[in-house]
Amino acid sequence: MPRWLLPENISDVLPSEARRIEELRRRLLDLYRSYGYELVMPPMIEHIDSLLTGSGRDLGLRTFQLVDQMSGRTLGLRADITPQVARIDAHMLNRDGVARLCYAGSVLHTRAASPFASREPMHVGAELYGHAGLAADLEIIELLVRSLAVAGCGKVRLDLCHVGIVPALLSLHGPVPGVDEEDLYALLQGKDQPGLAEALVAAPAALRDALLSLPGLHGRIAVGGAPAGIGARAGGDPLARARRLLPQTGPSSEALDRLERLAASPMWLRWPEVEVSVDLADLRGYRYHNGITFAAYVESMPFAVARGGRYDDAGRVFGRARPATGFSLELRALADLQPEQPPARAIAAPWSDDHALAMVVEALRASGEIVIQALPGSERDQQEFTCDRELVADEHGRWIVRELKQG
Amino acid sequence: MPRWLLPENISDVLPSEARRIEELRRRLLDLYRSYGYELVMPPMIEHIDSLLTGSGRDLGLRTFQLVDQMSGRTLGLRADITPQVARIDAHMLNRDGVARLCYAGSVLHTRAASPFASREPMHVGAELYGHAGLAADLEIIELLVRSLAVAGCGKVRLDLCHVGIVPALLSLHGPVPGVDEEDLYALLQGKDQPGLAEALVAAPAALRDALLSLPGLHGRIAVGGAPAGIGARAGGDPLARARRLLPQTGPSSEALDRLERLAASPMWLRWPEVEVSVDLADLRGYRYHNGITFAAYVESMPFAVARGGRYDDAGRVFGRARPATGFSLELRALADLQPEQPPARAIAAPWSDDHALAMVVEALRASGEIVIQALPGSERDQQEFTCDRELVADEHGRWIVRELKQG
Repeated sequence: MPRWLLPENISDVLPSEARRIEELRRRLLDLYRSYGYELVMPPMIEHIDSLLTGSGRDLGLRTFQLVDQMSGRTLGLRADITPQVARIDAHMLNRDGVARLCYAGSVLHTRAASPFASREPMHVGAELYGHAGLAADLEIIELLVRSLAVAGCGKVRLDLCHVGIVPALLSLHGPVPGVDEEDLYALLQGKDQPGLAEALVAAPAALRDALLSLPGLHGRIAVGGAPAGIGARAGGDPLARARRLLPQTGPSSEALDRLERLAASPMWLRWPEVEVSVDLADLRGYRYHNGITFAAYVESMPFAVARGGRYDDAGRVFGRARPATGFSLELRALADLQPEQPPARAIAAPWSDDHALAMVVEALRASGEIVIQALPGSERDQQEFTCDRELVADEHGRWIVRELKQG
Repeated sequence: MPRWLLPENISDVLPSEARRIEELRRRLLDLYRSYGYELVMPPMIEHIDSLLTGSGRDLGLRTFQLVDQMSGRTLGLRADITPQVARIDAHMLNRDGVARLCYAGSVLHTRAASPFASREPMHVGAELYGHAGLAADLEIIELLVRSLAVAGCGKVRLDLCHVGIVPALLSLHGPVPGVDEEDLYALLQGKDQPGLAEALVAAPAALRDALLSLPGLHGRIAVGGAPAGIGARAGGDPLARARRLLPQTGPSSEALDRLERLAASPMWLRWPEVEVSVDLADLRGYRYHNGITFAAYVESMPFAVARGGRYDDAGRVFGRARPATGFSLELRALADLQPEQPPARAIAAPWSDDHALAMVVEALRASGEIVIQALPGSERDQQEFTCDRELVADEHGRWIVRELKQG
């Protein structure tokens, strides 16, 4: 086994890709700062029970575990940064008002999400704590849409869901006899109608009908209009159909209210490039979500480039229950959408002990130029940079920058 | 055990520190780019035998290990990025000429280097491959000195060493009977004269005398002068003393030649803030070094903020032996030296569906302003930002920015 071989679904990021990632990372963090989001950097490792707080089976299976030699306790490598930021909001910052936080960093997965996915995705995200209203959901979705615009995504599809609907139905009718809840979620999000029908054989008829209808409740919706009631929607609209097929009162009905109010925001009219749809069985994610959730898709990518939504009270286990909503996006996937850039222009400088040359080179670099010193016997160019100018001494011994003919 | 408790010597980076780290990280990477260094991002995990290539016992003990469920093989969490970059140069890039590479990222240690040190230091560094000459050492040291200036370090002490001297002495006289080489290194770098004398009882007299003299060969040296010979140096200069106490010919003498040529460079005259000293027993590090090495110290920090040096041919195990030199610095320690900054100025905007307001807010943010929307019922300020202006509608309904009196 050669020494240079990396583990499966683990790779180096080489110069031109690294440059695209770094530039996008900066643009995104600068965008979040312009909205008042403060940067935090949670650690790569934590105690396993802190990392897996409130999350489902999936996150637990994806999390690498190791033993802390200093304490003997089990540590985990973070597979998701959001629960860490919720911990920071609840315990470390402990602020009364709204807290806006953002982050950028690697996470690690024991198993890749798909055969070609990396086991070390880079997540960038923003989280908003302390506000339960729709305004917070709108701000977070706006920030996501602007993030995708900054990344040059072009047309975007945003799938909305409300993950409070299934728990509302289950609490209305009690759990499904003989069916594990995680399995039920897997069947729903896989839109596995035969499997679902089989699993729900023993369930009360009203619950069975409601759950069986969920995988069909998806499709594009109209946005930005007047606040929509049942009557205002076309028969084919998945939210209108949900109104007919799901209970007319109670938490699942309130969840539909909230989705309709979100869809009615005039905010959407500012983004003709965003197509909005609903998918009430899109329950993917790490189970801590409990309100409106969303996933963003761009052309040429078969998977969601960003996911997010409400996860109110996730901080309770850390000492403080707070409203919470946010999103994270996969930086490497988004950076892949950026066009390959030509090599940057640089100035070649000779190798010399000359003090005046050192001063000129330092000033050029400080002004934003790239100056590459030709080490004795070495070539000028490197892959990422092309020297199109050079520093030479003129007839008076002054160092000047001169155009360089390319071979 | 509370859920929010982090493992020992692991901590979150909270907003104001995170901002200082992020800004310094960008300034450093921009500095390296201005010298023609290309950014790479090696993974957090690799096969353990790739990570520990050519390194000593210390790096092995510091490296977290875990099992890859996909392959059953043992993986390591990187404790050092330099060997990864050497792998990238040797195998992934495989360039003929000089390669200049830089990086920034976390590493993880099973045990903290000192009681208050983090087990997750953030390393930023630069590496230069493919050039064996002194010019490469000079460029790397220049880049380190400029990094510390960018970080606002003020006075800096640079300790030079040449880790080729001990192996040269050992190969001249053969290994010391009954003494493990790693133990010998530990005694030397701890300047443990009694322990060293005991360990060297059975060694040939010439070897014993030479090794016993090493811990005393340290102190400030004169730099930037004419190329120094033995006669040109004062009796107290550690390099002059080394000339008398170490063999007059062979590799250890050539190592002293190289240190003298480095000290003689006029480059040093540009940096009156840098005090240069030599410490020929400063063998700390991960054992892959094999030429001139250096450590940088700043006031108020008891440990080195940066380390580096030559590690020629480290890429051999990855398929290609190449000259190599570089350094890495600890970003969190350096960022701690930055003064605490006052909260950034921001503009408060009301929460509103108004399209004209949304356009004004977007334009202000695009121009570099921070605009914080007051979510219904929430306060304006957050810790890192102070709103000193607000957006209000004037008598014509136009949105204008107005000074805001601080309470």
